[in-house]
Amino acid sequence: MQEKKRIVVIGGSAAGPKAAARAKRLDPDAEVTIIQKAPEMSMASCGYPYYVGGVFDKRSALLSTPYGEVRDPHFFVHTKGVQARTETEAVAIDRQNHTIRCRDLNTGDMDYVSYDKLIIATGARPRKPPVPGVDFEGVTTLQSMKDADFLRKIRDDKTITKAVVIGGGLIGIETCEALQLSGIDITVIEMLPQILMFLDWELAKVLENHVRSKAANVITDVKVAGFTGDDGRLSGVKLENGTELPCQLAVLAIGVVPNVDLARDAGLEIGQTGGIAVDEYMQTSDPDVYAVGDCVELVHRITGKKTRAPFGDLANLEGRVAGENAVLGNRTTFPGTIHTGICKVFDFSAGSTGLSETRARQEGYDNLVTVINASLDKPEFMGAKLLISKMVADGDTGKILGVQCVGPGDVGKQIATAAMAILGKLTVADLVNADLPYAPPFSLPIDHFIATAHLMENKLQDRLKGVSAVDVKKKLEADDKPYILDVRTPEEFETMRLGIGETLIPIGDLRGRLEDLPEDKNHEIICYCKISLRGYEAARVLESLGWKNVKVLEGGVMAWPYEREK
Amino acid sequence: MQEKKRIVVIGGSAAGPKAAARAKRLDPDAEVTIIQKAPEMSMASCGYPYYVGGVFDKRSALLSTPYGEVRDPHFFVHTKGVQARTETEAVAIDRQNHTIRCRDLNTGDMDYVSYDKLIIATGARPRKPPVPGVDFEGVTTLQSMKDADFLRKIRDDKTITKAVVIGGGLIGIETCEALQLSGIDITVIEMLPQILMFLDWELAKVLENHVRSKAANVITDVKVAGFTGDDGRLSGVKLENGTELPCQLAVLAIGVVPNVDLARDAGLEIGQTGGIAVDEYMQTSDPDVYAVGDCVELVHRITGKKTRAPFGDLANLEGRVAGENAVLGNRTTFPGTIHTGICKVFDFSAGSTGLSETRARQEGYDNLVTVINASLDKPEFMGAKLLISKMVADGDTGKILGVQCVGPGDVGKQIATAAMAILGKLTVADLVNADLPYAPPFSLPIDHFIATAHLMENKLQDRLKGVSAVDVKKKLEADDKPYILDVRTPEEFETMRLGIGETLIPIGDLRGRLEDLPEDKNHEIICYCKISLRGYEAARVLESLGWKNVKVLEGGVMAWPYEREK
Repeated sequence: MQEKKRIVVIGGSAAGPKAAARAKRLDPDAEVTIIQKAPEMSMASCGYPYYVGGVFDKRSALLSTPYGEVRDPHFFVHTKGVQARTETEAVAIDRQNHTIRCRDLNTGDMDYVSYDKLIIATGARPRKPPVPGVDFEGVTTLQSMKDADFLRKIRDDKTITKAVVIGGGLIGIETCEALQLSGIDITVIEMLPQILMFLDWELAKVLENHVRSKAANVITDVKVAGFTGDDGRLSGVKLENGTELPCQLAVLAIGVVPNVDLARDAGLEIGQTGGIAVDEYMQTSDPDVYAVGDCVELVHRITGKKTRAPFGDLANLEGRVAGENAVLGNRTTFPGTIHTGICKVFDFSAGSTGLSETRARQEGYDNLVTVINASLDKPEFMGAKLLISKMVADGDTGKILGVQCVGPGDVGKQIATAAMAILGKLTVADLVNADLPYAPPFSLPIDHFIATAHLMENKLQDRLKGVSAVDVKKKLEADDKPYILDVRTPEEFETMRLGIGETLIPIGDLRGRLEDLPEDKNHEIICYCKISLRGYEAARVLESLGWKNVKVLEGGVMAWPYEREK
Repeated sequence: MQEKKRIVVIGGSAAGPKAAARAKRLDPDAEVTIIQKAPEMSMASCGYPYYVGGVFDKRSALLSTPYGEVRDPHFFVHTKGVQARTETEAVAIDRQNHTIRCRDLNTGDMDYVSYDKLIIATGARPRKPPVPGVDFEGVTTLQSMKDADFLRKIRDDKTITKAVVIGGGLIGIETCEALQLSGIDITVIEMLPQILMFLDWELAKVLENHVRSKAANVITDVKVAGFTGDDGRLSGVKLENGTELPCQLAVLAIGVVPNVDLARDAGLEIGQTGGIAVDEYMQTSDPDVYAVGDCVELVHRITGKKTRAPFGDLANLEGRVAGENAVLGNRTTFPGTIHTGICKVFDFSAGSTGLSETRARQEGYDNLVTVINASLDKPEFMGAKLLISKMVADGDTGKILGVQCVGPGDVGKQIATAAMAILGKLTVADLVNADLPYAPPFSLPIDHFIATAHLMENKLQDRLKGVSAVDVKKKLEADDKPYILDVRTPEEFETMRLGIGETLIPIGDLRGRLEDLPEDKNHEIICYCKISLRGYEAARVLESLGWKNVKVLEGGVMAWPYEREK
């Protein structure tokens, strides 16, 4: 009789336990063991910012199933049939002998665990800037349950008044919100020219403005020079431009580094992006070793290139694939990522799937067409909220390469819809007549997503001459200024306006006020409204009346990333 | 010089104005005229139930752009450059002479309007049952602005205490909610065995139970025999089974009939489903006549057969296609529908896209695989709500044929995601590793949609032996009863339980209580939990211990459509 298969999983956060549970389910005879360094297992680490910010108070919710069972070793044994050793470090992998040397972190005792198939899920650790003072008390990350406990205590104790978050990425912005909700005065520092690099600049700017409106300060384009302190306790953050920001807390959120030391020391191949190299079966360079989660590199499904995507959802899916292949042999594949992501930013959400314009250009696409669409997510009488989307398409094939969406509206649905469209390799022509669910509580008759595709189609067919806010700004700084035409109502103009030298002619009055327009029919005219639907109509009217150089400001007033007069 | 193209549109509700506006935008020289019978134009008719129910109070919101401009003839002329004649009936189409005979409904005067291209958008009218009393005062529909005004006045005047809604479809259920919110005692009558026919029975039943929990009565499987009245005023509804329901108001919502008389009288081809026949360009049997909206028949994109889909979103998309083709020649196509729909039902939503199991069987699919998944829409600590989905796949190809979803959770996102997956012709294998947006405010790490696909994959690969509630019910009524195993916690069991002879063994205790299970390893065992994830695990455990006939009740307690003990 064949011996029971021994499956060992190193790492007990997301991908590891999923792989272990899947392996055990598909081969109930297998002996499955998880080796986990931390005292906790299966932590809902993406939930830390919401616990820190007081969105919920029950710490155990981060460590339990939805039915209130704590996912501890007892749970794994009794519910999953999986052995779990917590506070145990995998020190070395001996691939020749199929053993792992382990250290009990409480006793320091060493022992060996044998495997037939090994699954590495060692995750990633927060990147730390190589600057003075980074080890001061008061400088932390938000990566572990311990970090979450530390920051939650700060909220509960109300001891701290000023904090700085280093890094304006996803985790940085979520942390910013959490601390701001705790009543702490926050500054976010970002070394790049924008926050949330998965967005293009103009959408990121909309978010940045929103963060500022919530009384959190954001400083972009500046690096941290170091931390100042008294007696080893943090007292401030020093920027490279000389500014010093006094604070009692600094949270580092400048990205993560995959934990590949164990794999590298064992001679496994490390990929060019720094993650463990795996094939479509999630198998490493050793057929008896799989790797999953934040420590691996994946294929980008659009570019075909290697990339890293340290996200909790993918970790679970990868774990599921590796768990199956480890017990049944390579039979199921993981296709990679399209970098779908989303985060909540106070009352706004920001999401992206596929390639941003910036990223697509870096990848060498040279016939890109982009469009920005701002509209409500449902009829105003149903309590609508604004959505601002940017769609990126390949001008040669019409294929959708990416969609970004920000605003207070239902961003999650937009991005899920777009992600599925990209996975289906759909073109703009496919999307313009998509059959999406419509009823007033859920969407506009023409869903925002389809409306974005309509604008894109108009642009691809050269019916919509769109111009981005960035380009309008440049034109305004040049000598040969365009004629700027706001076609909203006087009431709207009173409430909110750009103040860039525009003339107000409400769309309904346009045909009767042609004398106010430039006499020279070749003069450039840029039309807009709140979101630029009426702007588009105005442009068509002017073109029909003989003006030859009429453009539309994409996204209108709502997507204008710069300061407004009002 | 060529004369200006004359485009005439008959119908000013949704598809008509869209077609007119699109035609004028793409050919600003064209003369575009809308002929509209009602006094209003571009009514947001899908919004009527929410106006009637008091979700909002501003009547004009139903008739205005999001920016508060009333969409009246003045608006159409000044903003869209389109002529609009309201309270004007198109009486006959003379295709030979390219003219339409029109009657001014105020003066009775007749005149003729000439067209180069005609677009028919005559919509549909509510079906009326051929029973006595259907014309009593107090018997109405919810189709026109006039109907909405009538019902809203009933809400505001609080004169009525009892009403009956005839028909448990989408409009019937929306009307039921609107009237119930107005404080009226409601009964819904449905002649079929279930409400909401776009859902399969067991999901419709979940909705029906929810409607009942809101104190609205639902009677299925019974026809209306007639209406009783005093002096021409409604006093009750008589059912075929003899029951008489006293009421002062009855709303007919038994579907719509396409308005094709004008087209038929003009000799245009009418399709087998009763709608005007059009090709992919939305062109009728006459190349100079297009037709759009609720009066046409469309292609079902999955079955390839003709179908009707009188939905506001499709009407707009069809109008856009016909408007373009009418002025530029046939160059853009409308691909048809996958019958995507959604409605709000009190605190629940119900949506569907593609084929239901019932519909797929009618269409002749004989290797169908279906699965029901119940889960939260996001982590519990973020304020999760329940979703219950049913996925239908073609067992031969693995292709997704349809997805239905009901519950208090984010149904709109699930159905939009599923609709896009179906449009992309994706298979279950494509969906199991989909890259959807994840963060705790938006979804579970494994989104409900992907989790549904995982269950489906397990079922396709024969790893999940699911059994539907309907089949369990049948088994319980037979002689050879299965052993029913509830693996939830005692606390859950105390709060809510089926009471069908089940034994409670919490999943964590299962391995230690094997003596409570049937000795005969061939005895049928049916496992479940709240949503059947733990039920699935329990089944795998029992199989590993030698039981050979273990099944899982799909959707668990939450999707059980029958009465529960508790």
